[in-house]
Amino acid sequence: MKIRILLLAGMIILSYQSLTAQKMDKELDPSFTHVVYFWLNNPDNDEDRTSFERSLKKFLDASKYAKTKFIGVPADTPREVVDGSFTYSLILSFSSKEAQDLYQKEAAHLKFIEESEHLWEKVVVYDSVGIKNL
Amino acid sequence: MKIRILLLAGMIILSYQSLTAQKMDKELDPSFTHVVYFWLNNPDNDEDRTSFERSLKKFLDASKYAKTKFIGVPADTPREVVDGSFTYSLILSFSSKEAQDLYQKEAAHLKFIEESEHLWEKVVVYDSVGIKNL
Repeated sequence: MKIRILLLAGMIILSYQSLTAQKMDKELDPSFTHVVYFWLNNPDNDEDRTSFERSLKKFLDASKYAKTKFIGVPADTPREVVDGSFTYSLILSFSSKEAQDLYQKEAAHLKFIEESEHLWEKVVVYDSVGIKNL
Repeated sequence: MKIRILLLAGMIILSYQSLTAQKMDKELDPSFTHVVYFWLNNPDNDEDRTSFERSLKKFLDASKYAKTKFIGVPADTPREVVDGSFTYSLILSFSSKEAQDLYQKEAAHLKFIEESEHLWEKVVVYDSVGIKNL
């Protein structure tokens, strides 16, 4: 009976771990954030959008270093200070500046650029490190 | 003895929950992301920086709606596509577009703007909703 209880407790803990593991991809590492805005040449072209999304997802799935992996589109919140002109946004985070340097050189990253750079007309990147005393 | 084992299992699960609860503030909700870049009038003035950071943190601590709460500074990654000219970056996420609308009107938010808007010369906001099929 003791063994059954221990097994049950173990199963509950493992379920919990699996649940939190699934959330890991959404965790923002404050060590380094990498935010990218893409303006496509043809933002209304469904074929271009599908091709871009597929290529970007394939790359992010393969990356050993990228965390968080948020891909977004403008939220339709018109205000004077809001720039809603981009086609796609990307929010990634990294465990360190060095991890982001390695990500820049990953084969999957270079492949994504090779596959998709003809689709965009402009890219703007904002890299940040979290302030320490937060 | 059975009760002791159950108590032990319960304690382990509670410790795990507490550990994951601490991480909640770093979790990015893909429903809505709100990214802000601030350019201060005097980015090299320590007093202005301290005042800005203190006011922003007080506001974020008080906000009922803001999630993630990342405050950053440029990461010193000079590349052609990188804009490293901002003074502070802010990455927040929300459970919905409606939650972000409510955040815009929160008393703590209005107080932060009143306290700190004299410190910045420019603000740019990018609001995104996560793509569904990720």
